[in-house]
Amino acid sequence: MGNNQFGRLFTVLTFGESHGPAVGCVVDGCPANVPLGPADIQPMLDRRRPGTGPNVSARKEPDRVEILSGVHEGVTTGHPICLLVVNRDQRPADYDAVKDLFRPGHADAVYQLKYGVRDPRGGGRASARETLGRVAAAGVAKQLLRRLPECGAIRVVAGLTRLGSALARESAWNDDAIAVNPFFCPDPQAVAAMRDGIEDAIAKGDSLGGVVEARAFGVPAGLGEPAHDKLDARIAQACMGINAVKGVEIGDGFGVANATGSENNDALRAPKSGRLADAFLSNHAGGILGGISTGQPIRVRVAVKPTPSISREQETVNARLENASLSVSGRHDPAVAIRAVPVVEAMLWLVLADFALLGRVANAATPGKEPR
Amino acid sequence: MGNNQFGRLFTVLTFGESHGPAVGCVVDGCPANVPLGPADIQPMLDRRRPGTGPNVSARKEPDRVEILSGVHEGVTTGHPICLLVVNRDQRPADYDAVKDLFRPGHADAVYQLKYGVRDPRGGGRASARETLGRVAAAGVAKQLLRRLPECGAIRVVAGLTRLGSALARESAWNDDAIAVNPFFCPDPQAVAAMRDGIEDAIAKGDSLGGVVEARAFGVPAGLGEPAHDKLDARIAQACMGINAVKGVEIGDGFGVANATGSENNDALRAPKSGRLADAFLSNHAGGILGGISTGQPIRVRVAVKPTPSISREQETVNARLENASLSVSGRHDPAVAIRAVPVVEAMLWLVLADFALLGRVANAATPGKEPR
Amino acid sequence: MGNNQFGRLFTVLTFGESHGPAVGCVVDGCPANVPLGPADIQPMLDRRRPGTGPNVSARKEPDRVEILSGVHEGVTTGHPICLLVVNRDQRPADYDAVKDLFRPGHADAVYQLKYGVRDPRGGGRASARETLGRVAAAGVAKQLLRRLPECGAIRVVAGLTRLGSALARESAWNDDAIAVNPFFCPDPQAVAAMRDGIEDAIAKGDSLGGVVEARAFGVPAGLGEPAHDKLDARIAQACMGINAVKGVEIGDGFGVANATGSENNDALRAPKSGRLADAFLSNHAGGILGGISTGQPIRVRVAVKPTPSISREQETVNARLENASLSVSGRHDPAVAIRAVPVVEAMLWLVLADFALLGRVANAATPGKEPR
Amino acid sequence: MGNNQFGRLFTVLTFGESHGPAVGCVVDGCPANVPLGPADIQPMLDRRRPGTGPNVSARKEPDRVEILSGVHEGVTTGHPICLLVVNRDQRPADYDAVKDLFRPGHADAVYQLKYGVRDPRGGGRASARETLGRVAAAGVAKQLLRRLPECGAIRVVAGLTRLGSALARESAWNDDAIAVNPFFCPDPQAVAAMRDGIEDAIAKGDSLGGVVEARAFGVPAGLGEPAHDKLDARIAQACMGINAVKGVEIGDGFGVANATGSENNDALRAPKSGRLADAFLSNHAGGILGGISTGQPIRVRVAVKPTPSISREQETVNARLENASLSVSGRHDPAVAIRAVPVVEAMLWLVLADFALLGRVANAATPGKEPR
Repeated sequence: MGNNQFGRLFTVLTFGESHGPAVGCVVDGCPANVPLGPADIQPMLDRRRPGTGPNVSARKEPDRVEILSGVHEGVTTGHPICLLVVNRDQRPADYDAVKDLFRPGHADAVYQLKYGVRDPRGGGRASARETLGRVAAAGVAKQLLRRLPECGAIRVVAGLTRLGSALARESAWNDDAIAVNPFFCPDPQAVAAMRDGIEDAIAKGDSLGGVVEARAFGVPAGLGEPAHDKLDARIAQACMGINAVKGVEIGDGFGVANATGSENNDALRAPKSGRLADAFLSNHAGGILGGISTGQPIRVRVAVKPTPSISREQETVNARLENASLSVSGRHDPAVAIRAVPVVEAMLWLVLADFALLGRVANAATPGKEPR
Repeated sequence: MGNNQFGRLFTVLTFGESHGPAVGCVVDGCPANVPLGPADIQPMLDRRRPGTGPNVSARKEPDRVEILSGVHEGVTTGHPICLLVVNRDQRPADYDAVKDLFRPGHADAVYQLKYGVRDPRGGGRASARETLGRVAAAGVAKQLLRRLPECGAIRVVAGLTRLGSALARESAWNDDAIAVNPFFCPDPQAVAAMRDGIEDAIAKGDSLGGVVEARAFGVPAGLGEPAHDKLDARIAQACMGINAVKGVEIGDGFGVANATGSENNDALRAPKSGRLADAFLSNHAGGILGGISTGQPIRVRVAVKPTPSISREQETVNARLENASLSVSGRHDPAVAIRAVPVVEAMLWLVLADFALLGRVANAATPGKEPR
Repeated sequence: MGNNQFGRLFTVLTFGESHGPAVGCVVDGCPANVPLGPADIQPMLDRRRPGTGPNVSARKEPDRVEILSGVHEGVTTGHPICLLVVNRDQRPADYDAVKDLFRPGHADAVYQLKYGVRDPRGGGRASARETLGRVAAAGVAKQLLRRLPECGAIRVVAGLTRLGSALARESAWNDDAIAVNPFFCPDPQAVAAMRDGIEDAIAKGDSLGGVVEARAFGVPAGLGEPAHDKLDARIAQACMGINAVKGVEIGDGFGVANATGSENNDALRAPKSGRLADAFLSNHAGGILGGISTGQPIRVRVAVKPTPSISREQETVNARLENASLSVSGRHDPAVAIRAVPVVEAMLWLVLADFALLGRVANAATPGKEPR
Repeated sequence: MGNNQFGRLFTVLTFGESHGPAVGCVVDGCPANVPLGPADIQPMLDRRRPGTGPNVSARKEPDRVEILSGVHEGVTTGHPICLLVVNRDQRPADYDAVKDLFRPGHADAVYQLKYGVRDPRGGGRASARETLGRVAAAGVAKQLLRRLPECGAIRVVAGLTRLGSALARESAWNDDAIAVNPFFCPDPQAVAAMRDGIEDAIAKGDSLGGVVEARAFGVPAGLGEPAHDKLDARIAQACMGINAVKGVEIGDGFGVANATGSENNDALRAPKSGRLADAFLSNHAGGILGGISTGQPIRVRVAVKPTPSISREQETVNARLENASLSVSGRHDPAVAIRAVPVVEAMLWLVLADFALLGRVANAATPGKEPR
């Protein structure tokens, strides 16, 4: 795990700046013989592609992924997989107006404080385009998991459950609804309120925050390590490591603070299947106990702050620390939470792939356990 | 970063089970010449010591730390520091009644599913005693940070801001109040409600959840890495890696979901000090932007679930997956959130020490920056 | 892999100084269900125990290993295994005479240069006692490998093939001879010359260098990673990481420099067994090609420098950088190469255990390959 | 440190296959503000470029490096640096004849055994082209070290001291001679013998082994960690991790085995400079004691096996494990040792850059030590 790398066995190192020549990643540690081609990755990139509605920025990004290494005749070879997306629609001139200003809510100031140098074009490394590498890598993770017998049934789905004040109803979650609205909203009835909210924000030159919820089904019991590298600890790192995320919950999340033990404990009853993982009567834990998956669905909620780039005038300072005012023009999503949906999903795939491989190790000496 | 290890440069590997011979940790990567003795560590362990009131379990644990290596004539030598706490008050017989049962809300079932073997005495590795190693290591981290010029002013303080339905008021936070009540509550007026709540829970054979808030002052700007190893991402991992934690927030946390960009952005104005880090007018970000510290106070909130061990009868299954009922007797805190307070604080010290060292590297080639 | 840690999945962190309270290690990443008790570790420690002849130092070290964690009812639990050896025969006063001098050939000067502080008692961390942790961990590695079906037949044997000018003949290597002479020499006819050489060195107040050769049989084909983490690269790191080692060879080693391709290539012929790993006609490669095990025996040779502590007078400087002379008294082996034999063996066990687990991952997606 | 990654702070992840679209690397962990452009990297690549004489293969590789990320306006930004070299002269058809055969001395067989799949074109990942990424990364390392005050004077030079039976004389080493002969030979008088030897080998359809020696001057005292991550241990890993390397020596290397302590110890005398690092009277240690640099020149010798691809007929087996014979045509160096010279040099730069950054951490708490 390095500055820009995620994972212990299935590792992803992302690179690239928003307005440099390219962004991408190198996946190291993917086993051999996993079927992989651009078609396994491109759809995941397309989902996060902006420019399809009023809700996301109008940048025209073809975002074509190229596989530069690690695949031969349609399967992985066990060697590093470099995935590259050339930046085609660079408009660094868009940023001339702000290159001398610290945009509130952005990483501009801290990059300056940390490095004493920064690439102001589109936020450089802090751009949302950094997540392209993560999403591309998730395409590899997904293919790997499909190939592992114990993980072949894993399904990850994410949706936007809150946008500003518009809320999707927990009880109305519908997986199929997500793909057919521009907000990735799982509750069809909440879409109108989300649209109203975002149009109102745009009209005011402002932006909205939101909540992304992700669910993983079919995760085998036993994934995760018991102490610092708990499954939920790593999910928290993965999600908080996405730009603009300010909170992460597992299962009932902050709701547990006002619950009693008798309410919050998930009781067990003799399972018809004869499998311990089927014995739980409820899932307040969100599929993870003691840092290890229980076999029940994993539930994660992520709070995403409103896009900091807004056209409304804001107070700030310039590079000489003089007062200035700023109105950000250019291409910016009015709610980054929307585009965060496929990224949260991607991070879950990455975490699961890594722990699936780690699980192979944990069981190596247990007869009848390997592969889990 | 391994299964049981935390950190990249200042690393902590914890070991030991609740009812084995000892628990402890090895700190590797602490620089030489840091003044260190048991007196720098023992007070931190004493704070997490149970047995001082109705609110924590009655186990009599002296919990004396021994420094087995890495210190010579009162300073660290640059070599690994092994900190050991011998388990003196083992009562494995307490666990005979439950060794064949899966306790709801505990890691028993997942340990069985993952490893096919487990140490049932006191939860073994999943015991709260695992955190002793973390807290002891935090004593080293604290001493190290005091020795680094740019970090010498760092102060971390944590308190219990919610216990069941009893809430500490944000506006009433008083650092001095924390040490003088058995709940680590920063609001003196909330103590009575907390006491009432916990006594009620005990009377009902039940337990309570809570929220821990930690604040770090004096953190220099520039700590944290820009992508997967963001400062907030690592804090999230550190805190979610504590037993019973189900949610982590930075700054305004989930509150950002319902904020607009103009509300949530922290505007900047020309600072009198001439330091960019002093330019922020507000701190919705909780001291972290783009994964990097801004120089403002860091604010973290952590949701802790109610203690799963309760004397109220619960439904569960035994090792043969037959239905059974369980009433947990023995020594158990009615609210692990209380004892989590010094542990959250400890994890912040560990994260900050690691990033302080990483920051030395990031600035190595920037004239006038090193040491930050 | 940290300052004091070895391995990526099966990790060993050693700690402790020669004259501090204890030395030991924490093994993290060992799978559950490996039978383990002190009796699996103690014999390995006993082999490296000095004090049994003229050839090793006279320190009376009982060196009893204690297992502090990670084992329950005779099997590993999947949690960290802390192995501790209390230092019982501390004689720090022995070092009063040298604490102010930099002993030639020792780490004294570089420790001072690096840390600005050091523990002069017995070399502190640079003592040969640091290897106790490695050897103890190797006992765990050995037990783990026995439990993995593909690795159950692995056997590692090491011997001293050179001591000063006394050479064991390659053709006379006899595994059984090693245990029955105090030099770990595999050639019974070379023992006399070794004894003569060492007695002569002792008489002159001097010391001797030597060569240790280790062989690993039954290693399955396919262990090792293709680039920087080649099996031979890691063996080289493991062996060069032992104090006093100055050279490492695999297979024909430096002999390849004067060979032609037609001489050095190991040709293949159709194997009767039908297994590719049996097709090689020779083993110049020492069982490793392209960084990956071939299934043939692995051969490693390690050059060990003469013990730097000698009673003959040497020129040096004191802490004030004034000229001084030094004659080292106290307990010192006249040839550390002898005691290096079980340590080289131990490092091979550690490397193989780590790559055996990594191999499980590499094959995770290849039908019919897992477990290798 | 991963399968294909080197370093702990200054990390290099290489990717790419010989006949895929591109080879390259990602450098993560390079501090900001290091001046860097293609001109700092290209000359290092040009040195390893084949095709300039009878001694290296005739492949026409322009090998133009592109910097895809991490550099803005001529300095590093602190973010990952992706360096890419597009493969322009792919001739996969050259390998049709051998794709079904296991070439003796190559990784073909072990790749098949390990992964069950392989890219036979030019050895795929096992190709010498993998080293392009290492050499490119070394260009970054060199620039970084120049920028660190304590390391600015570091100079690394490597030469071929043996080619088959032709030997460069130790006493005749001349840095300036290296660049002006096609063998990187430091002894001008040995060049003729090397040329004769290689022409003879070519005439016989055979190949030669060799020895590369590298020297690093100006390395500050105190680099390296004391146990498993010793400076020499990591150099050994770095060099043994180069294809075809079978042995590594530091300082007197295997020569120490026949030395006495009084001969091998480097005595100290009061230094005129008043600096401890200047006190050593000799340098048998090769600049490293106890795993830590002494401030004297570092000397490393590396044994490189003869190129396995030879046109002389060899015995082997095909994919069906039937006997076959093989005569390798196509572009192949008659002695890979020659091209290994810049690669060994590159690996030393990478190791030194990593330890230079680690050294910043080790000294963080020592007044007057930072930066070393």
